[in-house]
Amino acid sequence: MSALLTNSDPVEELGSLCADLARRAKVASGALAQVPTAAKNRWLLASAAALELRAGELLAANAKDVAAAPGFGLNAAAVDRLALNPKRIAAAAEGLRQVAALPDPVGEVREATQRPNGLQVLKVGVPLGVVFFIYESRPNVTVDAAALCVKSGNAVILRGGKEALHSNTALHSLLSDELTRCGIPADAVQLVPTTDRQAVGYLLSMNSYIDLAIPRGGKSLIQRVAAEAKMPVLKHYDGVCHVYVDGAADLAMAERIVVNAKCQRPGTCNAAESLLVHAGVADVFLPQIARALAAQGVELRGCPETRRRVPTVTPATDDDYRTEYLGLVISVKVVANLAEAVAHIGTYGSHHTDAIVTRDLNAARAFTQQVDSAAVVVNASTRFNDGFELGLGAEIGISTDRFHARGPCGLRELTTYKYIVTGDGHVRE
Amino acid sequence: MSALLTNSDPVEELGSLCADLARRAKVASGALAQVPTAAKNRWLLASAAALELRAGELLAANAKDVAAAPGFGLNAAAVDRLALNPKRIAAAAEGLRQVAALPDPVGEVREATQRPNGLQVLKVGVPLGVVFFIYESRPNVTVDAAALCVKSGNAVILRGGKEALHSNTALHSLLSDELTRCGIPADAVQLVPTTDRQAVGYLLSMNSYIDLAIPRGGKSLIQRVAAEAKMPVLKHYDGVCHVYVDGAADLAMAERIVVNAKCQRPGTCNAAESLLVHAGVADVFLPQIARALAAQGVELRGCPETRRRVPTVTPATDDDYRTEYLGLVISVKVVANLAEAVAHIGTYGSHHTDAIVTRDLNAARAFTQQVDSAAVVVNASTRFNDGFELGLGAEIGISTDRFHARGPCGLRELTTYKYIVTGDGHVRE
Repeated sequence: MSALLTNSDPVEELGSLCADLARRAKVASGALAQVPTAAKNRWLLASAAALELRAGELLAANAKDVAAAPGFGLNAAAVDRLALNPKRIAAAAEGLRQVAALPDPVGEVREATQRPNGLQVLKVGVPLGVVFFIYESRPNVTVDAAALCVKSGNAVILRGGKEALHSNTALHSLLSDELTRCGIPADAVQLVPTTDRQAVGYLLSMNSYIDLAIPRGGKSLIQRVAAEAKMPVLKHYDGVCHVYVDGAADLAMAERIVVNAKCQRPGTCNAAESLLVHAGVADVFLPQIARALAAQGVELRGCPETRRRVPTVTPATDDDYRTEYLGLVISVKVVANLAEAVAHIGTYGSHHTDAIVTRDLNAARAFTQQVDSAAVVVNASTRFNDGFELGLGAEIGISTDRFHARGPCGLRELTTYKYIVTGDGHVRE
Repeated sequence: MSALLTNSDPVEELGSLCADLARRAKVASGALAQVPTAAKNRWLLASAAALELRAGELLAANAKDVAAAPGFGLNAAAVDRLALNPKRIAAAAEGLRQVAALPDPVGEVREATQRPNGLQVLKVGVPLGVVFFIYESRPNVTVDAAALCVKSGNAVILRGGKEALHSNTALHSLLSDELTRCGIPADAVQLVPTTDRQAVGYLLSMNSYIDLAIPRGGKSLIQRVAAEAKMPVLKHYDGVCHVYVDGAADLAMAERIVVNAKCQRPGTCNAAESLLVHAGVADVFLPQIARALAAQGVELRGCPETRRRVPTVTPATDDDYRTEYLGLVISVKVVANLAEAVAHIGTYGSHHTDAIVTRDLNAARAFTQQVDSAAVVVNASTRFNDGFELGLGAEIGISTDRFHARGPCGLRELTTYKYIVTGDGHVRE
């Protein structure tokens, strides 16, 4: 790369640097696709051990980022997300060990059939190739993303936030050392070595080297990536998630589920933002849930029918029903029946996660059939729409797209497949 | 729509017409997603019967297109593709009956697990939504595409070639009549009612209504659609397909396979364009295959090592090895070993379909593992990479992308999925 750095035009230099990075990732991905599961797992376990062994070094690098954070305008919550400590390092190591324990999606036989003419047809998992992962703040995401990409046979180009550059550089250097030690090309995990925003634009144009872009962060980041990327993008937009309490609901269960869906971790995309209550149970349930939510500090914004039952509820605007609060606010609406609930969710929701609470099998069946969301939940909290909870083992994000992968994306969603067709001299007539 | 047509600005009018079309498709797709399998199959069978019953009307419309074809600059082969006759109408009807017989991918349970906490998790097929299908010439593609989209629960906007407008209008009107008769919204199948090229541009920008664009035609059409589309595109690019004849090949089988792969239908994307021969069998096999291919009228273009064995072979340029001839030409190269064959395919191929002929299990295993193509074939013709042959039942195209679907795309590839999660009051800790 030293030859590149002698280049006099800084813009051209940045372009060359990005092209070189992307090209090397592509080359590494070819080799990585052939690396056996055992070697990938050895790397994951060795990296876990190294995280703990080299914790001092990581904490020192992180301390520089934390010290510089106010200069980047980070508030206390953001600084907290940025900070590493021995417990967080241990959690990152534990994450690596969990990914090592997951089945390898590469080489996995997904379908196997024998055709009437005797041809054997296998559909086998293969890596996508090169993933460009763009994320904000939290440095342990560096470790998670590298682990998921390498285990699924993909080379990854990591682009973290400028606030975390020292931490990410130290983590990347550690992961890289262990790759080399395990005989895997170090270029399988690369970190964009500049915080220049233009580098992202260059890389998003390189669809001959990069197979998938994954932005993880705020809506403006995702929009920018979606607009600029020449390769497919795995998008992770809003979760405007509903809980519909049916006329046939067990109201004690409904209360537990609504409180959990709203309050257990309000800042997540699968937290409930809107409560729909069947008119038949509104008189009983609305005062009950208003008390329970108030006890958790949740503000309710409701329709006139809600406010008639609970006058302390503030009025909801039409915008409220489209809002992902990501905090202790919930919109509330009384609906005449299941059909109105389904129609409301179709109009105001974001097709992410929507739940029904009911004892009526027909209602559950109609709701799950008619609501078009990545996850439709019956008698459980919306918070279960998550890679771990649904059994994917780990997740790199929750896709709000319909194409390729919908909902939680784990190792398998980071792969594609090929057909392996075996005959004994078969020709077509 | 009459209100739109009073609009004075023709550009704005076209934009409104397209927006109206796309919006109506979106509305229809919501209803279509809930239509039971039996009703979709009734429509397919009724349309098959109507095709045969109304053949006279279809032939009359088609005759107008055929008469106008020279005016569009169509050559004899293109006019032949455009022409309908009773046999082709019967084949289209038979295609509809075959799609009726295929399993419905909507509602199909693809995975079912019970989590340790007792949550039941189903992964269930659902339609993508609205498909914009852009194609050239052959009018029976209108019928095939409508059948596959509706059976998979997707509304479709059809945009055929201007040369086939009368035929497509007649076919669309027939399919539409049968939709109404079967109680399915007629907007589930719409035909763009203008041949204005700008209409395609408008529709490709409407990603809030259209979920997938499928261009089927020449490379320039696909490139235009890929460049303009704001929604995902299912691309169907070149097939530069190889047959590698290994040192351990049964040479009689290799001859049959190479001749079939090249000659059985040379104009298709899965026809072989390049032959790689292991040096160990080149002395025997090259003269043998040169004779067999010459008997079929195939021109061979070879490397110096090929020409040393068969002096009548014309020299191949580097470009020859990258060319999809789609005709009776094949490039030939002698390789030292399997690794060189794999490397050549990686460099010059298009990741579509590549075959090995060998009796050596290790060679077959290495080839299928190392060649990164949508279909890797052992001891069979490349021509088997096809939706029917691989058991998908029918295909709307062969994807050369890695994302969402790779290789033949049938009914299931026109769908996505949702998770249905059922508990009995589960909340997250």
